[in-house]
Amino acid sequence: MREAIRAAGLKSGDTISFHHHLRNGDAVLNIVIAEAAAMGLRDLTVAASSLFAVHAPLVDHIQRGIVSRIYTAYMTGPVADAISSGILRTPVVMQTHGGRARAIESGELHIDVAFIAAPAADDYGNLSGTQGRAACGPLGYAVVDAQYASCVIAVTDQLVAYPCGSIDITQEFVDFVVDVDSIGDPNGILSGTTRPTTDPVGLEIARQASSVIEASGYLVDDFSFQTGAGGVSLAVAAEVGKSMRRRGVRGSFAAGGVTGYLVDMLEQGLFRNLFDVQCFDLKAVQSYRDDSRHLAMSASMYANPNNRGAVANRLDAMILGAAEIDRNFNVNVTTGSSGNILGGSGGHADTAAGSKLSIVTTRLTARGGPKVVQKVRCITTPGETVDVVVTEFGIAVNPRRGELEHRLRGAGLMLKSIDTLCAEAARLAPVVPSAPADGRIVGVVEYRDGTVIDVLRMVA
Amino acid sequence: MREAIRAAGLKSGDTISFHHHLRNGDAVLNIVIAEAAAMGLRDLTVAASSLFAVHAPLVDHIQRGIVSRIYTAYMTGPVADAISSGILRTPVVMQTHGGRARAIESGELHIDVAFIAAPAADDYGNLSGTQGRAACGPLGYAVVDAQYASCVIAVTDQLVAYPCGSIDITQEFVDFVVDVDSIGDPNGILSGTTRPTTDPVGLEIARQASSVIEASGYLVDDFSFQTGAGGVSLAVAAEVGKSMRRRGVRGSFAAGGVTGYLVDMLEQGLFRNLFDVQCFDLKAVQSYRDDSRHLAMSASMYANPNNRGAVANRLDAMILGAAEIDRNFNVNVTTGSSGNILGGSGGHADTAAGSKLSIVTTRLTARGGPKVVQKVRCITTPGETVDVVVTEFGIAVNPRRGELEHRLRGAGLMLKSIDTLCAEAARLAPVVPSAPADGRIVGVVEYRDGTVIDVLRMVA
Repeated sequence: MREAIRAAGLKSGDTISFHHHLRNGDAVLNIVIAEAAAMGLRDLTVAASSLFAVHAPLVDHIQRGIVSRIYTAYMTGPVADAISSGILRTPVVMQTHGGRARAIESGELHIDVAFIAAPAADDYGNLSGTQGRAACGPLGYAVVDAQYASCVIAVTDQLVAYPCGSIDITQEFVDFVVDVDSIGDPNGILSGTTRPTTDPVGLEIARQASSVIEASGYLVDDFSFQTGAGGVSLAVAAEVGKSMRRRGVRGSFAAGGVTGYLVDMLEQGLFRNLFDVQCFDLKAVQSYRDDSRHLAMSASMYANPNNRGAVANRLDAMILGAAEIDRNFNVNVTTGSSGNILGGSGGHADTAAGSKLSIVTTRLTARGGPKVVQKVRCITTPGETVDVVVTEFGIAVNPRRGELEHRLRGAGLMLKSIDTLCAEAARLAPVVPSAPADGRIVGVVEYRDGTVIDVLRMVA
Repeated sequence: MREAIRAAGLKSGDTISFHHHLRNGDAVLNIVIAEAAAMGLRDLTVAASSLFAVHAPLVDHIQRGIVSRIYTAYMTGPVADAISSGILRTPVVMQTHGGRARAIESGELHIDVAFIAAPAADDYGNLSGTQGRAACGPLGYAVVDAQYASCVIAVTDQLVAYPCGSIDITQEFVDFVVDVDSIGDPNGILSGTTRPTTDPVGLEIARQASSVIEASGYLVDDFSFQTGAGGVSLAVAAEVGKSMRRRGVRGSFAAGGVTGYLVDMLEQGLFRNLFDVQCFDLKAVQSYRDDSRHLAMSASMYANPNNRGAVANRLDAMILGAAEIDRNFNVNVTTGSSGNILGGSGGHADTAAGSKLSIVTTRLTARGGPKVVQKVRCITTPGETVDVVVTEFGIAVNPRRGELEHRLRGAGLMLKSIDTLCAEAARLAPVVPSAPADGRIVGVVEYRDGTVIDVLRMVA
């Protein structure tokens, strides 16, 4: 690793990038920054597509001045907590997945050296996400890094004979290949939840969300759909699948981070294709490896607002989560109840903007606090891109979508105003912890086009 | 088409690009330039990866000032003849396939609007080479154009539902999709020769070339191989296949423009993978569509000398043709007996430079003229990258490769000096038509790195 870092010409003040396909199992970011620290490098900018609890050693590197700036689309765990408490002198830049691709392609965020964790690689730099003990599927988030970085270092623990048969990133983009003992823990790669919820409230929300899709007019042939990996999201997928079968609808594609659940829908003929930027479970990895209908997409193809057309723009229905949603339909998935960082947009803002019908599913309250609020503590996704919110207490349609509201009413859905939902949430959970309004700014939230739409403040 | 050209902002003096996957069946270049002419555009630069007889209408466009500059890697037919006779005011630039990718990626050759003939496409610009009536396989030569052109217009005669299931160029690179009646004649897409020669002299040359490979020391496990689609080249492949089976050698990959013959070798387990920049026949197209071991490569991945590693650099043995080869092993595949243009490098110079063992197979004479000569009329491929020439009269090894000569002698091959071959050719065909030495310069031959290594002169 040291030899590769030296050969890459990495120097203090440079920008290095990482992808998060290995999620909370990733070992590569820690290996690289520890080595850079041992080499005496300082003042590095880390552009990581996401950061997880496993990246806790980064806190120490920040404190010691090895790392001084961070760009990411999502962070959780000790690094997020430490940044919320103010250890980073320069505010963290919270991007969207599509915004990150845009920033890199436009040159706004230039990467000096991209480090790409590769489950398998040959000695010439063909990289595979489907071979090796840490097989994770497509390497969608790393593609733009590979194409635009000044230097690309692949890191693998499975060096295979040339040519690496199934190629996710091709050799002409890769400068060096480093063979390490382990790029990470395969168990940490998998997302926590990959089965639909069994909780009655969650199931009811899912049924209502599916009813919204059914009533919206979009559930016709060539229907396209994306949902995350959470239990409610997958329950929505299950309900939508039932509706599609009942109505004989053959969809065009499902997209996103892909779970075995979407794979099932592909195999049942509900969709012709999957567009996959990242696999969330082993079933998805196997499907991507074996089924030619299961297509990879780069982060740019997925969600970059400035290219010639992203997959997100072709979505009919998108199911979104929320930490909070407010009366203007603004959604916060970046901060928690004390204003501390505990997530980030990922593709949230991208798909909300791109899809014809974006549906936020959320309970009215959680852990004693309201989730439908007067004003979100942090705007991750602007309300003008959110069409419907579905709670266990009722469904509210964004007033900007009058024609949609008309259709849903026509289908017999009981709609409420967002204000009613908000009032009910306040009644159930009257104590609203407030975010720090005047602390030092520790982060900026960039919308997908690069504009700053909110700031994050220090939490004591 | 007019609407798309207008939307692309194409103006007089701009550079437009085309690829040659439809070969002598292509209709797209003619459609586009006719439309540009009808729109009153003038002084266009045409950067076409290759030009064929079917592009004859270009002669008229040149004469009328619609097209004033041409870049290509290969040309044959009326356009080549007309340029040799001097109709183009600015010399044509003859590139290599890898050099073209390099020039585009470096910005040396900027494309304003790339026109990509797509056998199938969806309305968002996902392009497939494996669907449609003009299915041609990978779109390797068009990939760099798509990535670097200011604007990309796809032209298809099979508009399919979104998403186009098998994607060779993805939507984020494509600005517009134009649906036309026909992008070309499928029969013209196929290369002329896709079966090994049955001519006894050709077969003997092929056997000798295979013996050279066998004796070279490179025919061991992980052997890699490329050959063209000519009858002798395919006969060499047949002989090499026999040797591999006899010796129990399992190769790594075969590459190139791919024929059904290489597909057979893949299916027989002689190679693990194929790297395919362009299919030469339907069997290759079907294999690329159905067999995941049959991998696409872009022109850059194939042969660009300036990226982080091209497939050509990983070749063990490369079988090359020649119009002429001289005493310094320089090869001409650009001009004919009167100095007229009748071809070009394509990947000739790229693979000669990249491969460990480049073998030129040629008869000693053809059509009454010598093919092994004192000095080639045009240098397409520098002799320092050519290792061996095999003729029906004997084998000569480049003196730069002393250790190779030693191995071949050790294996009992009868070697001759290139001078001996040259003298015998002169004896058999004493009349040497000479190229025009002082005519006006009508073309420059660019080596893959962009240096000019020869010029082409006007032929009366």
